[in-house]
Order: sequence, then C-alpha cells, then structure tokens
Amino acid sequence: MNSTRTAVADKTNSRGKSEATRERILFAAANVLSRKGYSATRLSEIAEAADLRAPAVYYYFASRHDLISEVMMVGQTRLREHVMSILDALPTETEPMDRICAAAAAHLEVELELSDFATAVTRNTGQLPDDIRARLRHDSQLYSRLWREMVESAYDAGQVRADLDRRAAIKLIMGALNWTPEWWDHSQGSIAELIATTQSLIRHGLGPVPKGQLP
Amino acid sequence: MNSTRTAVADKTNSRGKSEATRERILFAAANVLSRKGYSATRLSEIAEAADLRAPAVYYYFASRHDLISEVMMVGQTRLREHVMSILDALPTETEPMDRICAAAAAHLEVELELSDFATAVTRNTGQLPDDIRARLRHDSQLYSRLWREMVESAYDAGQVRADLDRRAAIKLIMGALNWTPEWWDHSQGSIAELIATTQSLIRHGLGPVPKGQLP
Repeated sequence: MNSTRTAVADKTNSRGKSEATRERILFAAANVLSRKGYSATRLSEIAEAADLRAPAVYYYFASRHDLISEVMMVGQTRLREHVMSILDALPTETEPMDRICAAAAAHLEVELELSDFATAVTRNTGQLPDDIRARLRHDSQLYSRLWREMVESAYDAGQVRADLDRRAAIKLIMGALNWTPEWWDHSQGSIAELIATTQSLIRHGLGPVPKGQLP
Repeated sequence: MNSTRTAVADKTNSRGKSEATRERILFAAANVLSRKGYSATRLSEIAEAADLRAPAVYYYFASRHDLISEVMMVGQTRLREHVMSILDALPTETEPMDRICAAAAAHLEVELELSDFATAVTRNTGQLPDDIRARLRHDSQLYSRLWREMVESAYDAGQVRADLDRRAAIKLIMGALNWTPEWWDHSQGSIAELIATTQSLIRHGLGPVPKGQLP
C-alpha cells in the first residue's frame, strides 16, 4: 500500500472515529437531558455516559451551551431532513393524502429512533436559553410549513374535509406523533404496526366521507 | 348576631381564604416547574410568584417534595375527575362515540385551563422522585382504563373500525390532546373551535366508513 493511500485511509478512519465519538456524546447528552433536565445536566455525567473523561468532550464541543444547543437541534433537523428525503423519493404522481401518510411514517421513524432527542426537547422547552429556542423555532417553522403545504394540496385535491380547521388539525396530528416517545416501546409491537394505525387515523380523520355508492 | 354564628362565619371565611392561598401556591408552583424544571425550582421563587414569603408556604405544604407532588397530581386528578363528571352527566342513552367526543372536549378544557400543571408534568416526567412517579402512574392508569372502556363500547356498537389497533389509537389521541398546551393559546380562536376540530378528527379517525346510501 503506498504511503499516500495509507495516509488517506488513516485520515478517513480517524474522521470516522471522531464522528462516531461526537455522535456518542450527542446521544449520551440527549439521554441525560431527558432524565435530569437542563439545569441539572452536568458535563461530567454526559462524559461518563459516553465513556469519556470530561475534558475530552471539549475536544468536540466548545462549551456545555454548544453541546446542549446541538442536542436540541439534532432531533429537529434530522426529523425534517428525513421526512423531506422520503417525500422527495416518492413518485411525482403520488396522491397528496399518500404523501401525508408517508410523512407521518417518516416522522414516527425518527421520533422513535431518536426518542431521547425528542424528549430532551419537549421536556426542556421552558428552560432553554433564548438563542437555542430561536434556532429551534426557526427549524420548527420550516417543518410546519412543509405540513401545511401537504395538507393544502390534499384539500385542493378534495382529500380533506371542509369542516376541519386545517391549521389546528395539523397541530393535533403533530401532537399525536410527538407524544409517541412518551408511551411507545418495542414491547408494544412493531413500529410498522404503529405506523399503520397512525396512517389509518390520519387518512380517515382528515379525509372526506366517501360518496354513497350505487348498488 | 350571636357569638356562635359569628365564630362559624369567621371560620368559614378563614377556610375559604386559606383554600384560595393554597390554590395560589399550587398555580405558582406549576408555573415555575414548567419554566425552570424540577431541579432548578426553588421554594423561594414559588413563594415570590404567589406573593408570599417563603416560610408562609410551609404553613400549607410540609416540604418542597410535598408541594411538587401535589402539583403533579392536581393536573392528573382534576383531569380525570372533570372528564368523569361530564360523562356521568350524559343521558344514559348517549351513543358510545358521542361519549368519547364529550370526554375529549372535557379533557381539552382541563388541559388548556390548567396548562401549567399539564406542562409541569410532561416536562418533568424524567426527573421526578420515584414515589411521585408511582402516584402519577396509578392515576394515569385509572384514566387510561376509562378511555379503553369507552372505546371498547364504541367498538362493540360498530362505531370503531376493525382495522385499528385500539390501544395504540387511544394513545395517539391522548398525545394529540396532551400536546395542545404546547401550541394552543387564545389568539388561535376559541376552545370551542379547537374542540370541534378535535371531535371531528376523532369521530372520522376511529369511525367506520359509512355504508353506501341508496340513491
């Protein structure tokens, strides 16, 4: 193996390892923040949960504030990015209501896979410094806009009942999805089953009453 | 006025005032717990928010632990009691799905009226001492049972689709209801409008697809 390739490989490995450690710190921090809350979260406890010594955490994050800010953003941004990537991969002719159901499934996948990040945000919303809240709010608004556009398209296509306040309906659906990490775990069946029930509730909850069929 | 009646009146007034002060402390504590979190909640701050001096709080609650325990229970028990009283007042011939919709309305009323109590619980779930969590869990199980019975009755009456996992559907609905204090406020319309949208989502979300009507 020539030395250039070895150096590149080393660098890639080292970057990969560094990325993995950074990710481990984030997951540990999300878990501690969920359990202890913002005020009581200590960097030393995060380091211990990540199997590191406290000073090593500063190699990856400049401060406690930066680490917590990043934890709060990860749940939010990965959620939006995953949902958008699933929607982007759908055939262009996909019906608006089917797009909504695909987005709900993608939302649940992230919510339950990154449940510590989700609960770290919801349980600490009231306690966060203003700058972190502002970042969260901005990203959350982008995500809400995505849902509004999907539901308006479905409404325009006659797939949403006219009696619904669509803005409130979206928030109620978001609530149902966002609350899942508080009660769901693998002992209750597969994520696929939960997704199927959620999609059925949304499709019938929003959808028009079918026209009577001729006998 | 004879002296006995005066003494009784004084005692009644004093009890009323005492009850009001106790209630004011509970509301102040709920607000501080929502904003600061369990670990950072100080009795002195609660006292200040209730317009009292810290020692006065101990006249009503034996300890910080007892006060916080009571805050956590208030949201939960008043929710269940209000929903049960609304259900008890319905005519016996009320259809199961109408009972579910009445319960959802009652749930939202308490959730939004006592929103600080609701968010105090959700935002501090991970941080509470085990004994408080056990009390909360017990009451929460009683409430879940009430919903399960309502939904099973509706299912038996043919008012809930067979394709739904009813247990998961109830949890999703609870999530939608419990999340409302995180986004709803009076600037977004009346509680009555929110209730109407919620009931419509539940009724169609759970309900069977209507049979085709003869022309």
